[in-house]
Formats: sequence, structure tokens, C-alpha cells
Amino acid sequence: MLVLRKPYLLFLGDARTPVDAKTALGVAQWCPDDVVGELRFAGAAVSTGMPAMGIAEAVAAGAGSLLIGIAPAGGQLPPHWLPTLFEAVDAGLDIVSGLHTRLNDFPELVRAATAAQVQLHDVRHGAWPRVTGTGRKRAGRRLLTVGTDCALGKKYTALAVTRSLQARGIPATFRATGQTGIMIAGSGVAIDAVVADFIAGAAEHLSPDNAGDHWDVIEGQGSLFHPAYAGVSLGLLHGSQPDALVLCHEPGRTALDALPAFPTPRLADAIDAYLRAGRLTNPAIRCIGISVNSSALDDAQWAAYRDRTGAELGLPVVDPLRGGVEALTAAIVQPEETHHDA
Amino acid sequence: MLVLRKPYLLFLGDARTPVDAKTALGVAQWCPDDVVGELRFAGAAVSTGMPAMGIAEAVAAGAGSLLIGIAPAGGQLPPHWLPTLFEAVDAGLDIVSGLHTRLNDFPELVRAATAAQVQLHDVRHGAWPRVTGTGRKRAGRRLLTVGTDCALGKKYTALAVTRSLQARGIPATFRATGQTGIMIAGSGVAIDAVVADFIAGAAEHLSPDNAGDHWDVIEGQGSLFHPAYAGVSLGLLHGSQPDALVLCHEPGRTALDALPAFPTPRLADAIDAYLRAGRLTNPAIRCIGISVNSSALDDAQWAAYRDRTGAELGLPVVDPLRGGVEALTAAIVQPEETHHDA
Repeated sequence: MLVLRKPYLLFLGDARTPVDAKTALGVAQWCPDDVVGELRFAGAAVSTGMPAMGIAEAVAAGAGSLLIGIAPAGGQLPPHWLPTLFEAVDAGLDIVSGLHTRLNDFPELVRAATAAQVQLHDVRHGAWPRVTGTGRKRAGRRLLTVGTDCALGKKYTALAVTRSLQARGIPATFRATGQTGIMIAGSGVAIDAVVADFIAGAAEHLSPDNAGDHWDVIEGQGSLFHPAYAGVSLGLLHGSQPDALVLCHEPGRTALDALPAFPTPRLADAIDAYLRAGRLTNPAIRCIGISVNSSALDDAQWAAYRDRTGAELGLPVVDPLRGGVEALTAAIVQPEETHHDA
Repeated sequence: MLVLRKPYLLFLGDARTPVDAKTALGVAQWCPDDVVGELRFAGAAVSTGMPAMGIAEAVAAGAGSLLIGIAPAGGQLPPHWLPTLFEAVDAGLDIVSGLHTRLNDFPELVRAATAAQVQLHDVRHGAWPRVTGTGRKRAGRRLLTVGTDCALGKKYTALAVTRSLQARGIPATFRATGQTGIMIAGSGVAIDAVVADFIAGAAEHLSPDNAGDHWDVIEGQGSLFHPAYAGVSLGLLHGSQPDALVLCHEPGRTALDALPAFPTPRLADAIDAYLRAGRLTNPAIRCIGISVNSSALDDAQWAAYRDRTGAELGLPVVDPLRGGVEALTAAIVQPEETHHDA
């Protein structure tokens, strides 16, 4: 498992749009206490709201890493960023990057990092665990977010459920499987970058044995209904051995975002498919609710959708951004009243 | 896709048992015309039956590669093999290895190979295609072998079906997904060594568009019922888009070979699960028969098992080593009479 050195100085470079800067914005939103400030170039159009500071100030404030919080077009590292990266390394900061371009492909940067005894973390290309799955049942309880498609709120839902459990006094840990999640958590496994033979083994590694009343809340990836990524989703499901699933969905998304020829499944069919697959490693798996990205609906539409869907499935339906996830955590606390026998 | 330079000189080293030498024996069995001979150390206890020869003789006979056809204990390369490997490289042969140890981790061997302009192929660690799946339907027809467990005849069945189709005059190509299969075919993708995000994409790449009456017969890997490898099996299934499945099974194996806590599925349940999953990328997928490793049964037991199982499932049941796979290829040629509506 990758472990990062917090707190972060968020590097925003010359970010033009919030979409460019979604990594920095996500980190600033979910773990503001782990951020000392942001470093922007003159003319950058986005801010996280964190204090603006340079490398020296950040080091003085206790920063452990410079986190590249912006995704440039094409995922490549622009050469004009390099002076800042060298300055950070020379000042004793690790660098954390989720870019396609590898920091470790710049020999001079590698030499500087070695000399300064700091780390260059290419989160997208980590040396992930090469362990095969065992199927052995682990102690502790686990929740996995799954989806009818990619990119509809699995990370956000897992983070929100973790916070909600903690607020109820239930011990819970967010387990990150994607690069932004890893940056927020400070550790994790980029599950889609693991060698295929080791997907389930890496997922087992991510949520080891824990106290019996502890919940690992695991960030899902991909979708069983996506023809490119279903293998990743299945291996993550098997290795996670979840007791509880939360199905994430976006109403009105009738086809996969990236592949319009593939329809999204009906919610009941999706629940059925995830439960069938998940029973291989946890026969007691159940779906405890639906998490919806309802941004396309107005308030009346959302209320109607939530109530109708909830009644049809016999499950709580939430939007983390529109009322929170309390109904999901309530279903965890009182499972016997809400479980789904699909 | 990896492409190897045939014909091969099979390196047997000091093989002690046929199990040690199963790669060499498989290659000699399935593509003897691609083998010029074998190289054994004094005292080796196994032979493929190919002519014994040294490096120079093999080069004179037109060899393209030295193929390491033996798996030493632990998968490591014993140092006393190195002189032979250097001699092969210096004589202009590529080297093909499926060992855990990488040929490319021996800097002096890499230098020698560069100087001689030959290739060192680490089949287990190849630079596999980094392409994501598209789900786009490809021209031509495809068959995939799948299993109730690992290691019960998926490669053997695919090779036998390919030969049987070719013998009927039907154009067919064996598509290899594991290291021994790749050595036999001379090309392929080691699907379990691909980065997880690219499993389905690599499988798409393996059987590109082809003539409408051509069959790609694809070697399956893993099992949907194996908690370590189901993700690989699902990605391969989705990317292969098979029109036809052959389910491989070993009667009497009531639990997974490597994980006795996990029962093998009933055949009807396994067919159902593979067809449900496969319909995502090919709604017309069907199961055309069962291929059995019946080595634990005597002749009367095998006949009874075959007839009872065939009647129960309404499908042909074959053992490639006990009567061949003609009943499967007949089901391909006359699909309307034998298809299975599970």
C-alpha cells in the first residue's frame, strides 16, 4: 500500500477551470486539515481557498509533500512546472503526482530527489502489491460503493459514509482505490493500475483484519456493466468481501457516459448482479441503499425520484449533496430493518 | 501482441520430471514442425523426442529462438544455465522465457543481446498493450474456453478445437492468453500480466476484425468462481465477445484446487453465470458444450458421466484426450440443433 507524507502544499500551476483542478479541490474539501496552503502561478483562474504560499513558507508551515493538484490537457507534465518541482525537492518536500507522465522518468529530478532523500510518488504507476487473492474471511466489517457506470459518485459517497459513521461514534476508515482518493486518505492502492493477476489480492491487502465493530468503507471503481472495466470492478468486489454495498447511480443517464452504445442497467438488475458476484467471497453480502447524483433534477423531481425509487426497491435513496447519507448509515446501524433480499 | 521467432530449439537443461518440462512437452506436442530439436544437459531425465542438438547445429537448422522449456523449482533461473544462454545469444538466437526471473534483469545478457541484435522475451513480464476496451463488435466469429476452476484443460481444449475446425476446412486461429499457449502459437497476450485497466482492451486487441466465417479460438484463463482470478476471467470474456463458450470441468473436483474452502459450481450454474456475464458484449453468446478432464474415471465411469451430463444439459460432453472434440465442432457447424437456452 502506498503511504504519503502529509500535510500537503497544493500545486495549482496555471489551472484554468475547476475541472482542471479537481484533484486539488477534492483534497481541500475532504482533508483541509492536511493542507498547509496552495501554490498558484500568476494568472491561475482557480483557487482552493487555502492560503497562497511559496515552497519556503510551506516547509516552514510543516508541509511534507508538494501535491500536483491539477490535470493538464493530455495528462503530460508541462516543462515550465519543472523549476517549481526542483525547488520543492531541494527544500525537502516529497512530490505526489497522478499524471500520466512519470516524475520518475525525469532523471535529473530523480537524482535531485535521491540527493535530498525525498520521495517522488507517481500514484498512477505505483509498485502495487503483487499478491494473489486467498478468499480468506477477514475480521471487521466492510462497505463497498459500486455503480451502474463510472464517474457518478462512488468516491464521494464512500467519503461521506465514512464521515457519517465516525460522527455516530462508529469506528470507520475510508479505503482509497483511485488516485484522488489516495491523496485524500494519504494511503491506498490504485486498483486499476495493479497487474490483472493481483486485483483481488491487492483489494484484500487494502482492508486487512480489523476490530469486529470497525467498518472499512472502500471506494469502488468502474462498473460490472462497463465492457472495459468490469474485470477491475469484479476483482475489487471479491477482494473487498463487503458486508454492505451502496449502489451509485445518476438518474437520466440511460447509457454509459463513455460508451453510448451500452445502456445503464435497471437498478434492481444492477443490485442483483452485484449481490450474485459478491456472494462468492461473502455469502452475507447485502445492498443497504442507493446513492444518487441528482444534479440534473430540481427539488420536486428529486423528492419524487427518491420516494418512488425507495419504495420500489425497499431501500433508502440518498444524494450526499442533497440531504446527506444519514439514511445509509442508519441502515448500517440497524441492518435488520432495512435489508434487501434480492 | 507479442510475436516470437520460430522455429525453436527447446532448452531442457537438467529437467528431472515431465512436470518440470511441461512447457517443452506442450510445444513439442502442439507445434512439432516449429521445433528443430532439443538441448539437454548430461543427466537430464526428460526428453521431448526431438533430435538432440547444440546451439551451432540448431542455428544451421534454421532455429530462430532458444525456448526455455523447463520450470525450475521456484521459477528462478539457475546460474549454471547462463553459459548456454550467452552462447545462444552470441550465435544469433532470440531467447524465450516464461520464468519469474527476468532475462532482462541480467545486464550482461542484455548487453550481449543488444550487440547480437537479438531479442530477450520474458513472456511473463511483457510490455502488454495499454488499450482500454471499447465494446465495439468485431467481424468474424469467436469461441472462448471457460472453466469451473483453473488448470483443467482450457488451453488444451482450445488447441484441439482449433485443429478440429481446420480439419473440417473451417478457417480458425488459436489465440493464446498464457505463456505456454503463446510459445505454441508464436504470438499472443499473457492476459493475467496486463495492467487491470487494460484487460478487456488487450483481449479485444488479441482477436481483431477477421473474415466473417473465420473462428478465433481463444484460450481462457482463471475462472469466474475463483476469488483471486475472476476479474481476469471477466475482462477476457468481455473483450473476447465470444459467440460460443466451451465450459471446461474435471468431474470429482468438488472444490477449487488451490482453495479448498471454495466449492466448484454446478455445471448448469456455471453456464448460467458465464452467459449472463458474456451477454454484455455479445447478446448472442451461447454455450456449445462441455470439455472434461476425465482422467480420474475408468472407461465405464466416463461413458456414464458423459451420457448423463449431456442429457441433463442438452449439450455435447467431450474429453479431448478420450474421443476428441468432434462433437463440439459439429455443434459449431450446425448451431441450430444444439444450442443451449440457459
